[in-house]
Amino acid sequence: MSLKTAIIRKEHFNAAHRLNNPNWSVEVNQQVFGKCNNPNFHGHNYELEVKVTGDVHPETGFVMDVKVLKELIKMNVLDKYDHKNLNLDVDDFKTTIPTAENIARVIYENMIDQLPQQLELKIRIYETERNFAEYPA
Amino acid sequence: MSLKTAIIRKEHFNAAHRLNNPNWSVEVNQQVFGKCNNPNFHGHNYELEVKVTGDVHPETGFVMDVKVLKELIKMNVLDKYDHKNLNLDVDDFKTTIPTAENIARVIYENMIDQLPQQLELKIRIYETERNFAEYPA
Amino acid sequence: MSLKTAIIRKEHFNAAHRLNNPNWSVEVNQQVFGKCNNPNFHGHNYELEVKVTGDVHPETGFVMDVKVLKELIKMNVLDKYDHKNLNLDVDDFKTTIPTAENIARVIYENMIDQLPQQLELKIRIYETERNFAEYPA
Amino acid sequence: MSLKTAIIRKEHFNAAHRLNNPNWSVEVNQQVFGKCNNPNFHGHNYELEVKVTGDVHPETGFVMDVKVLKELIKMNVLDKYDHKNLNLDVDDFKTTIPTAENIARVIYENMIDQLPQQLELKIRIYETERNFAEYPA
Amino acid sequence: MSLKTAIIRKEHFNAAHRLNNPNWSVEVNQQVFGKCNNPNFHGHNYELEVKVTGDVHPETGFVMDVKVLKELIKMNVLDKYDHKNLNLDVDDFKTTIPTAENIARVIYENMIDQLPQQLELKIRIYETERNFAEYPA
Amino acid sequence: MSLKTAIIRKEHFNAAHRLNNPNWSVEVNQQVFGKCNNPNFHGHNYELEVKVTGDVHPETGFVMDVKVLKELIKMNVLDKYDHKNLNLDVDDFKTTIPTAENIARVIYENMIDQLPQQLELKIRIYETERNFAEYPA
Repeated sequence: MSLKTAIIRKEHFNAAHRLNNPNWSVEVNQQVFGKCNNPNFHGHNYELEVKVTGDVHPETGFVMDVKVLKELIKMNVLDKYDHKNLNLDVDDFKTTIPTAENIARVIYENMIDQLPQQLELKIRIYETERNFAEYPA
Repeated sequence: MSLKTAIIRKEHFNAAHRLNNPNWSVEVNQQVFGKCNNPNFHGHNYELEVKVTGDVHPETGFVMDVKVLKELIKMNVLDKYDHKNLNLDVDDFKTTIPTAENIARVIYENMIDQLPQQLELKIRIYETERNFAEYPA
Repeated sequence: MSLKTAIIRKEHFNAAHRLNNPNWSVEVNQQVFGKCNNPNFHGHNYELEVKVTGDVHPETGFVMDVKVLKELIKMNVLDKYDHKNLNLDVDDFKTTIPTAENIARVIYENMIDQLPQQLELKIRIYETERNFAEYPA
Repeated sequence: MSLKTAIIRKEHFNAAHRLNNPNWSVEVNQQVFGKCNNPNFHGHNYELEVKVTGDVHPETGFVMDVKVLKELIKMNVLDKYDHKNLNLDVDDFKTTIPTAENIARVIYENMIDQLPQQLELKIRIYETERNFAEYPA
Repeated sequence: MSLKTAIIRKEHFNAAHRLNNPNWSVEVNQQVFGKCNNPNFHGHNYELEVKVTGDVHPETGFVMDVKVLKELIKMNVLDKYDHKNLNLDVDDFKTTIPTAENIARVIYENMIDQLPQQLELKIRIYETERNFAEYPA
Repeated sequence: MSLKTAIIRKEHFNAAHRLNNPNWSVEVNQQVFGKCNNPNFHGHNYELEVKVTGDVHPETGFVMDVKVLKELIKMNVLDKYDHKNLNLDVDDFKTTIPTAENIARVIYENMIDQLPQQLELKIRIYETERNFAEYPA
């Protein structure tokens, strides 16, 4: 049968961030980003869902070995972002504003080339239980 | 890149409702809707997920400002439904049975014209943790 | 060893209610209870935790058989409150305002005499994920 | 309007399983499946989401009566899998490794022919809060 | 009856922090606090439970009006901590290390004198879903 | 001040078990333990909360270093129970029925002597989201 199957692995990390566009004045940044613009940063417990879609291997019953997927997430996300300041400590966000939308896209772009080509990838990131983003949608 | 990004905002409201079709007899209503037909109403803590899909603005890193989205949800859903009796207090359900399916569609139809045209909208409504509906699916 | 053990069983029910003191004027009720005073009712998905504390029976490893506890909760709470209007349909709240505090106490008083005397009982009721009450505290 | 609506019903069951391919040696099974290969089994609280997509019936406001859907899930999944050993007690997994991917597909294949033809079905199964699978993806 | 009743209100806030004792060397701080010592801060979605225990007022059915309690939490916690850097922006932690234990105690000490004397207070603070503290225990 | 503070660490493990008293007949076991008596075992995602109560150290702001507590839980619980069959693989339950009540007590007894004497310990174990036990209560 040609229907695809997906597996989803959920991980979390804790990080500080602020939303700020360096091309704008302090006033515009404050107006657009509100309390998320606090210059001393605030932070979140980010929850990350990594969804991998493909065919199930008949010998293992796996789309992909979750142990391998966990290791990819560890190297590409947790080791780089956990207990870090996204703006100051992480190269990915040196010139990219760390909104949930951008974090989802950056994680996708960092991980997609490390997956076998026949697998699809989708990233969902929860900034809080009530605010989250998906890429690609 | 042409891939779309989505943001999801989750809100909640508490409301009373009953399932009843006025064109049917008491017996048929009772048979079809069971305990959800109780004439004195029952109620739920509804959880609402509003998903907006589009392109990320390069200057803000946003698909849409969540503060604006929250205000739209407040005006179109919370101010009208929270701590209300959906059947008696809300015009949207005067002639529409407030099933989860219909609530999802009504919220979609109320909100879609207030979003910029290039954005897509999807509504998910949880009647309980274990019963929920999506529109469009 | 003389230390006690507890088991907790969690159940849920959906009900409509309003907060209203019939000895007060409409204005005072509105002022004290705010939107919870809506005359057409609103509702909740109540989550109920029933905690029973005692000694573990050496032959079963149980403080109490959870099947028996579930049946007691069914008879004393779910059959009476689920998909009901607490104010109109339930004798327990004919003259008692169905606040979370009072619901917890009423459930306690209804159940305590049906448990073996050597067991202690505590009730926790969640009106929403963010508002809950315990009796006895 | 031609947009579809979905309802989702969530249920759970508790079961034991192990991951093992009888065509492989003990060593290869241990290497591929790790601690999930424990010959004495381990277990999970599986959470199951059954999503049914179609048109809303104008008289009921339902895609499908949830009571009917619950009964279908009970017969096809809960009665067969709950408090069972998937490998030893359930015919569905006599020759199929009970990974989350395979459990999702098997449930789909068991249920799809029992739904009216115009309805679509999707299965999501949570092995843990952090590992889950979807079929079709 | 003399048994007490409790109500619990849950709120959340997002903040950055680091664990650091200024009386210690960089090396000792790193050794004791590990990645929580990151000089550029990290952050959390803190969940706060405020439990108030007392007698239920016979006219209202309330231990305390939750609207009043919410306002007290807003003034004493949310307005001061939300979207802030606890170490840099909040006087309470200028000389107190913002561990979960200390945050719980500081919130207790800030709120206790603003409650009527006959009420008891207990604070639970979740740094993550898996790490939390209570004061008094 | 003499008030105590508590920290709670939450961990999880997946295991198979069955409830069976070898001193009883098959029929009595089946009657008392129902589907939990299935001879081929079933399983759970156990959630474990370990609560440690004591004084906060003024230099660290800790009741106890969570890294040390995590290591104690790993050695005493996770390494012994995770992905195991509690009845067949774990000495602790060779002659003790692995009910939630007994699991909580056994974990307490295994861990209490490894904590500094001035600290108190309490164990909460969730067999499912809706069935859990505490020791000591």
